[in-house]
Amino acid sequence: MKPVKVGLLGLGTVGTGVVRIVEGHQEDLQSQVGSPIVIEKVLVQNRSKDRNIPIDVSKLTEDPYEIIQDPEIDVIVEVMGGVSQTKEYILEALSRGKHVVTANKDLMALHGPEILRTAKENQCDVLYEASVAGGIPIIRTLIEGFSSDRITKIMGIVNGTTNYILTKMTQEGASYNEVLKEAQQLGYAEADPTSDVEGLDAARKMTILSTLGFRANVALEDVTTKGISGVSSEDIQYAQRLGYVVKLLGIAERQDEYISVTVQPTMVKNTHPIASVNGVFNAVYVYGEAVGETMFYGAGAGELPTATSIVADLVAVVKNLKLGVNGQQASTAYKEKKLKSDEQIASKYFLLLHVDDRAGVLAQITQVFAEYEVSLESVLQQPNPSNPEAEIIVITHDANKAAMNKVLQKFESLDVIRKVKSVYRVEG
Amino acid sequence: MKPVKVGLLGLGTVGTGVVRIVEGHQEDLQSQVGSPIVIEKVLVQNRSKDRNIPIDVSKLTEDPYEIIQDPEIDVIVEVMGGVSQTKEYILEALSRGKHVVTANKDLMALHGPEILRTAKENQCDVLYEASVAGGIPIIRTLIEGFSSDRITKIMGIVNGTTNYILTKMTQEGASYNEVLKEAQQLGYAEADPTSDVEGLDAARKMTILSTLGFRANVALEDVTTKGISGVSSEDIQYAQRLGYVVKLLGIAERQDEYISVTVQPTMVKNTHPIASVNGVFNAVYVYGEAVGETMFYGAGAGELPTATSIVADLVAVVKNLKLGVNGQQASTAYKEKKLKSDEQIASKYFLLLHVDDRAGVLAQITQVFAEYEVSLESVLQQPNPSNPEAEIIVITHDANKAAMNKVLQKFESLDVIRKVKSVYRVEG
Repeated sequence: MKPVKVGLLGLGTVGTGVVRIVEGHQEDLQSQVGSPIVIEKVLVQNRSKDRNIPIDVSKLTEDPYEIIQDPEIDVIVEVMGGVSQTKEYILEALSRGKHVVTANKDLMALHGPEILRTAKENQCDVLYEASVAGGIPIIRTLIEGFSSDRITKIMGIVNGTTNYILTKMTQEGASYNEVLKEAQQLGYAEADPTSDVEGLDAARKMTILSTLGFRANVALEDVTTKGISGVSSEDIQYAQRLGYVVKLLGIAERQDEYISVTVQPTMVKNTHPIASVNGVFNAVYVYGEAVGETMFYGAGAGELPTATSIVADLVAVVKNLKLGVNGQQASTAYKEKKLKSDEQIASKYFLLLHVDDRAGVLAQITQVFAEYEVSLESVLQQPNPSNPEAEIIVITHDANKAAMNKVLQKFESLDVIRKVKSVYRVEG
Repeated sequence: MKPVKVGLLGLGTVGTGVVRIVEGHQEDLQSQVGSPIVIEKVLVQNRSKDRNIPIDVSKLTEDPYEIIQDPEIDVIVEVMGGVSQTKEYILEALSRGKHVVTANKDLMALHGPEILRTAKENQCDVLYEASVAGGIPIIRTLIEGFSSDRITKIMGIVNGTTNYILTKMTQEGASYNEVLKEAQQLGYAEADPTSDVEGLDAARKMTILSTLGFRANVALEDVTTKGISGVSSEDIQYAQRLGYVVKLLGIAERQDEYISVTVQPTMVKNTHPIASVNGVFNAVYVYGEAVGETMFYGAGAGELPTATSIVADLVAVVKNLKLGVNGQQASTAYKEKKLKSDEQIASKYFLLLHVDDRAGVLAQITQVFAEYEVSLESVLQQPNPSNPEAEIIVITHDANKAAMNKVLQKFESLDVIRKVKSVYRVEG
């Protein structure tokens, strides 16, 4: 039983987890694939740095080409992150017939089609389960579990940092800035949190999920993205009072052949399964025409959960190696991508308006909704004790985005509206 | 592109769903597997019966051997149910080189090892995703998604009928008998509901899940099973008051190499993800040493959800056919089965006792727990207004089953205890 040799690019948190699982679970892995799996070489930035796992220093290298060009190495596991340099390494590894397992959502969201094409040309596998939702096996679920179905909706809580922040804001009534600071101290948020809190990380993951779910190559720029930095504790309290929670949701929808993908803070009815996903946990809700509602829940990040997905991919690559069927993944993006226009994107909306507290205001406002044919599910007007203003809360029925944009534009020119305080999509 | 020919055994609810999906999603299926998938022949009990799908009568047969022995047929899809006769058909089909997709939990729980061995000997695939939890792809998740991990716990709500009954009892305060009758009228429960309500159906599914999760052949007789017919609305109300819900849980646990599998009504802390799985929905909670907590949620039964899993298996078989790698599934049960003794099975317990309402009773009772080293998390004593009895509610810390059995035995000989009203396992 010739051992399968792995070159590991990166030995940070996730890389360390990969070493731990491959070494700690070696017996189980061998029982499944029939040969030892050996981590042969590891790319690090600094060979002499102290590591918190025992690893033979002779395996460490600072030169990526010592791994990529090593004819002995069968599989590259890429957990170094980054895009352009990393892409070069991966393309070169593929051109040399090495299979690739990656956790790199940025790379797959931006260059997935090119990488998968190059893999096919070289009869290599590229697997990337760990790139979305850490330990949740959502990618194989979309490719294999639902191969028979037609998915119409994917909603994901795919960023743990923002879900942690929103959960804390909800449970403790704290402000965004307070909780962000705490999350940074706990290591749940980066010093520069932009990629997480502005929804960019979630957008990359939704690019990958929607490409798989809808079987068409969705590009990152197709995703309209709004983060959580504008979510106030007031909004969260209004949501709670009405039976909703605020979540940063990635929402990918398909109707007929037209799709839309967004990331935005969303008010979710608290009876919806995804509403109770709290803290750093992730979940992906998938609706299929035949299967109906499903949801997949688990840790979205972390050393061992993410490494679980990477090593599961490694097992799949090695099984294919044994059978001689690498690079035979059926194309998953065989459909032409057709994006919805704003007229085709429909959802319910929540609006919080600050208005003049005088007669006839509500009539003027409802008239605007009527003009653009946006019908209303509920309207609540109440005085604002601290101001000479009243507050009006509106929840619409399904309204198309183009019409809502016109309503909001019209509101700007309406004297009685002092401020459109908040606008949220509503789900569930 | 030579079409792949399928023989369908059974055209009830699920069989009808299979026909609908294979025909309705033909274009998508072809794009994935590269050839048409054709339902060539269908075994029915009565060819002349009216069907609620359009199907060419010439495809229908009442003779199973016309399908099993047809050299043109590549794959058998078995949705007829039953055990011994069905097993014969499947073994014969395998011996003739036909691959098998089955939704038959009874068959797989009772004869899974024999069927899988026969499949391997004949280089055939046997896939059975639909046998557990309908549309939830939990079997491929255990085999592939968590191939890298060591699972220590699987908790499943894997029977929709009982979950519907318990949900209704909880939400409406109704009695077991009332709700069962309603469920029967709605078609959620059979005229003879024994298999569902006594936990036998769930036990079969837990046999399959624990075999996969622990990689050792668990047999149906290894599962200790208790159904929900003894669950009273009083128990449910006590649970609610203490922050628990009552669920029929299949629980498979592993510690070191020792495993236990049970099905029983369980009080689940209402913050646990599985506590909010309501109605006919199913969910499987999986805890892995590396991945931590995960949960998979969806429809557990029904025409189209179950057919989704069957057709996904069919797609997998056809992909293997194209690559010439059928029958190459790695063995999933490579470990020796070691069952826990009652001394090794630990859990928290809830007890409701009816006792004499006089001094010293609580002291006597707590003395018994102390004698067998069962420590208590909380004790609540209250008068029962309708009786000269008091009620004592006890929740224990983790206690081993042997010790708890001794406690319960001792209680029988204790004069002050009039009745041990209820005993539940507690989770979360």
